[in-house]
Amino acid sequence: MNGDRFAAEVTVIGFDGDDTLWHSEDAFARAQERLVGLLAAYATGAEVLARLKEIEGRNRELFGYGVKGFTLCMLETAIEVSNGKVTMTDIELLLEIGREMLARPVDLLPGVAETLPLLADGYRLALITKGDLLHQESKIARSGLAGLFGTVTILSEKTPDSYLQVFGRLEIEPGQFMMVGNSEVSDVWPVVAVGGWAVLVPYPLKSLHESGFSLHQSSPRLRTLTRIDGLPALLSGAEGPSGATA
Amino acid sequence: MNGDRFAAEVTVIGFDGDDTLWHSEDAFARAQERLVGLLAAYATGAEVLARLKEIEGRNRELFGYGVKGFTLCMLETAIEVSNGKVTMTDIELLLEIGREMLARPVDLLPGVAETLPLLADGYRLALITKGDLLHQESKIARSGLAGLFGTVTILSEKTPDSYLQVFGRLEIEPGQFMMVGNSEVSDVWPVVAVGGWAVLVPYPLKSLHESGFSLHQSSPRLRTLTRIDGLPALLSGAEGPSGATA
Repeated sequence: MNGDRFAAEVTVIGFDGDDTLWHSEDAFARAQERLVGLLAAYATGAEVLARLKEIEGRNRELFGYGVKGFTLCMLETAIEVSNGKVTMTDIELLLEIGREMLARPVDLLPGVAETLPLLADGYRLALITKGDLLHQESKIARSGLAGLFGTVTILSEKTPDSYLQVFGRLEIEPGQFMMVGNSEVSDVWPVVAVGGWAVLVPYPLKSLHESGFSLHQSSPRLRTLTRIDGLPALLSGAEGPSGATA
Repeated sequence: MNGDRFAAEVTVIGFDGDDTLWHSEDAFARAQERLVGLLAAYATGAEVLARLKEIEGRNRELFGYGVKGFTLCMLETAIEVSNGKVTMTDIELLLEIGREMLARPVDLLPGVAETLPLLADGYRLALITKGDLLHQESKIARSGLAGLFGTVTILSEKTPDSYLQVFGRLEIEPGQFMMVGNSEVSDVWPVVAVGGWAVLVPYPLKSLHESGFSLHQSSPRLRTLTRIDGLPALLSGAEGPSGATA
């Protein structure tokens, strides 16, 4: 039976950070609400969010992911949507929102603090995130989880190639690796594509640049869980015959 | 004689990127000049630069190094120095300066394109930079030098510990490593402190947050060169009896 168990040969579990181990997207959502409120005299909420998404898209190649680039995009959006009529006090407020997002405490998702030490007993754990380098390092340090991870890798994009490089450094085959994360685009498909395993744990709020995009595909190498504390049962084969795929 | 040669046991040469292999600080200097010009009605150039330096200092822990954080600091400076009277057109201009800095072509320093392939013949080369993750990766890719480096490491800070981690990954002793860079703070002292070798190649423009700081110390494990193409002679022992230390 062991050979049929989901991810039976896995020795390394990779975890995404933002919105998998700790809250992140909720702060972006709150910042967007404040941007919408601030621009209420100039455009509807939907118009503001559409413009923000467009501006984030055109700046993605230059800015990448993370709070600093997001703050610069909010500023561009405020100026464009208001035709330059937004006040300097509003600009200061947006700068302040960015600093608040960077400074806010790390808030772990339910089940994370209990589950990761259990998994660290039987597996090597790797943290594989993307975003602002310093901000990610700071969140890892403040999470209280850093000691559980044998390796920490911060990428600008999570692609099949970047996962293959991680496997090389860890000296494992793809089939020995399972990724746990909230993003199909970053945590699931590039891993499954190169022969690894993946567990999707969706975050209630979807990031703006991913909304509208979903694979809606099943794979024998993918499971979906509603909470991370379902992992030990899934890995021990106690999940039941049909798996926990949603 | 061989044992007395500078860095005789070195097998890996680490290179800093910004202002060592390619121009970077000149763009920050030009951006600062434009900020000074834009605020000429409100303060002297010295006052503007002093305020910018103070704002960069207080945001360093949140922003780290790199163009995006620098852009946010220029915006804060413009608003503070003008008491909120700076125009929205000026804010837009500062946002545009940031995007220009991120998008500008990689401009190699003199001697780099010729010297690195020579060194790659006898040594393993490692690129060790700090700054915005995506921007650094993009500059490395556009530099045309990526193929010469066995490893590329992007750090949020260059500390003795971070160099020791690099040595661990490269599986070398500190005495087998030599760092080449333009910054005493980042490229020289943390390397020499843990038993490595260092070659300082100063950049004509010193970065604002480092000006006023200099070790002015000599070490048998440190040499100073005016151009990177002095490296092959230095490493072959052809530098002359007293070394090239300034």
